[in-house]
Amino acid sequence: MGKTISINAGSSSFKFKLFEMPSEKVLASGQVDRIGIDGSSFTIMYGNEQNMRIERPVKDHEVAVNMVLDALIDLKIIKSYDEITGIGHRVVAGGEIFKGSVRITDKVIKQIESLSEYAPLHNPANVMGIRAMQDVLPNVLSVAVFDTSFHETLPPKNYLYSIPYEYYQKYGARKYGAHGTSHQSVAQDAAKLLGKPLDSLKLITLHLGAGSSIDAILHGKSYDTSMGFTPVSGITMATRSGDIDVSLVNFLMEKLHITKFSEMIKILNTKSGLLGISGISSDMRDVLEARHESIRAQLAVEIFVNNIVKYVGAYIAEMRGVDALVFTAGIGESGISVRRLIANALDYFGVKIDEEKNQVQGELCDISAPDSKVKVLVVPTNEELAIAREVERFKGEA
Amino acid sequence: MGKTISINAGSSSFKFKLFEMPSEKVLASGQVDRIGIDGSSFTIMYGNEQNMRIERPVKDHEVAVNMVLDALIDLKIIKSYDEITGIGHRVVAGGEIFKGSVRITDKVIKQIESLSEYAPLHNPANVMGIRAMQDVLPNVLSVAVFDTSFHETLPPKNYLYSIPYEYYQKYGARKYGAHGTSHQSVAQDAAKLLGKPLDSLKLITLHLGAGSSIDAILHGKSYDTSMGFTPVSGITMATRSGDIDVSLVNFLMEKLHITKFSEMIKILNTKSGLLGISGISSDMRDVLEARHESIRAQLAVEIFVNNIVKYVGAYIAEMRGVDALVFTAGIGESGISVRRLIANALDYFGVKIDEEKNQVQGELCDISAPDSKVKVLVVPTNEELAIAREVERFKGEA
Repeated sequence: MGKTISINAGSSSFKFKLFEMPSEKVLASGQVDRIGIDGSSFTIMYGNEQNMRIERPVKDHEVAVNMVLDALIDLKIIKSYDEITGIGHRVVAGGEIFKGSVRITDKVIKQIESLSEYAPLHNPANVMGIRAMQDVLPNVLSVAVFDTSFHETLPPKNYLYSIPYEYYQKYGARKYGAHGTSHQSVAQDAAKLLGKPLDSLKLITLHLGAGSSIDAILHGKSYDTSMGFTPVSGITMATRSGDIDVSLVNFLMEKLHITKFSEMIKILNTKSGLLGISGISSDMRDVLEARHESIRAQLAVEIFVNNIVKYVGAYIAEMRGVDALVFTAGIGESGISVRRLIANALDYFGVKIDEEKNQVQGELCDISAPDSKVKVLVVPTNEELAIAREVERFKGEA
Repeated sequence: MGKTISINAGSSSFKFKLFEMPSEKVLASGQVDRIGIDGSSFTIMYGNEQNMRIERPVKDHEVAVNMVLDALIDLKIIKSYDEITGIGHRVVAGGEIFKGSVRITDKVIKQIESLSEYAPLHNPANVMGIRAMQDVLPNVLSVAVFDTSFHETLPPKNYLYSIPYEYYQKYGARKYGAHGTSHQSVAQDAAKLLGKPLDSLKLITLHLGAGSSIDAILHGKSYDTSMGFTPVSGITMATRSGDIDVSLVNFLMEKLHITKFSEMIKILNTKSGLLGISGISSDMRDVLEARHESIRAQLAVEIFVNNIVKYVGAYIAEMRGVDALVFTAGIGESGISVRRLIANALDYFGVKIDEEKNQVQGELCDISAPDSKVKVLVVPTNEELAIAREVERFKGEA
């Protein structure tokens, strides 16, 4: 019983969603953007499509948390902080320490920080969010839900790199994947939509957003995934490179007179992907619009689609087939033409979409043509709810 | 007319094959191993299965060249050096400078050296071989044949990385691939065996040796390939890692207290792959033998097979089908159980081999079962002959 808030903290953003549990009713959601940067803003959606937007400097995550909680009281969404009986935090990297969600303690926070090498952009930001919430609501049950937990079931042949084995044993050098909460929850919703038990299905979930990853889900378990040791690997993303030849790192550092490896990794995380190829934007909508005038924008689209096509082919091969492709996250849920390009490129496997149904945006929908050999689904991701459910599980245990 | 010698020089090895051209008759072949290292040896095969082996210190490539040429005279394979009218050198990286084979001049040698960043282990060794031959036979037509030339036809969506585009324009940071001479020549032989024009076929060639690469050949042209900017990328190899997450490089350097990037790259090239995972051997035969007693050897085999299965699936997806899989090079030509494991794992695509035919080693053979939807061929690679043919083309032009 009570209300649970799901938190997704980035280095300069703080997203939240407040649920009444166990009814799973959304009471409010919103985000604070550009924390610590000029032009901070706070947006909250609540009630019957009501919303409020405030533009005001927000110097750190603690200020952001206070803004959010104050608004919940001011807008009469809650009467007092006591109504919040659970907090769930999205954490990107759980390494080999966290195989599942965990109640947050000081020790856990230190461990999450120690895993920053595995997600240099994400884990430190996640900890900022945890600390800020803890300062304001120190006594509320607080749970960390890891993006990597769902990938705990990867078989060794898919999580090991072909490097000296002791690097895995001693240092945890392996593939961890990410977006696990999303892949898991859309797979569950996809199975419901198909009316079949999840453990009877071969699914490929395509989480296509600013960060993108593809997951091969065999009988309900994550079997292979495109992100690697860190989220820089896999397919082309908004500003991340995806897979590249390691030798390029040193080659480019010499050419660019960069001496710090971290600077090079920053370029691969923030100036690459769609932005790097197109030179126009990291936003797929802009790139799509520009592609008739810009060869580089056209190339960015082609590379993005072809990366996905290759991963899908690889996962079909290793799972020996696929029952459904599941599109989710920003581009997956709303990218009508991207879905069309991907589906058309996969026609060899009998993938065929119904162009009318494909007009859907952000709604659960089977967009397959009647004669498609593989189902094609759009399933909105709901990581926040999946996180709130995890918290609920801990409330039960308390 | 005359005799042409094909050379493949490694850092401590010098392989050669002498052909009578244009008849393509092999007059002799052999190699000098462990040049500059304890335990040097020289082996030459000639005539009617005759051979000679000498164990004697060989301090550098020039000594090796002299040993080879002296043996050709002593064994009466040639009467004088004048009979050698062409020399073809395998060179791994041609970058964006060399789109095809080229007559070797001092300028060309400098250019090949300047491309060492693209193949740090190979190009410097190739140049050693070129210089050594030049010193002994300065006036003979000498041609460089590049491993990368065949991949000249890759479309931009397959050779570009998703990094800032100017890194490609300014520094040539892109995928170049390797083993091109081998992929091209086995594709030609495969088309002959299938009795179909090469430009009507979709082929996936699997060059599986100490270095391994997979090539998607669409209508006779290299369309995609597993090796990248350098030959460290792609599938698991004998001692090379294949694809890994770039963030691992710095992570491991810190853990291992390595300060030089080149040292880390050396580990990824010489201590990884089958050797790194199994901890037993870089030789697939040893690893296969050990796999019933060693979990790590079993893992090495599984990872090798699964890497290949995934690349094949990816290439089937992007070519929209495949007519034949073509096995070549050491493991591809002789690895009976590896071929079986790969073919069985690809059964979803209708791949099926005839187990009796699959007993073949090192011989041209269609090993498909009669009802296989995809042909499966064993085609011995003959890079040396392909190189000699390139030289012949230049003789014609002279």
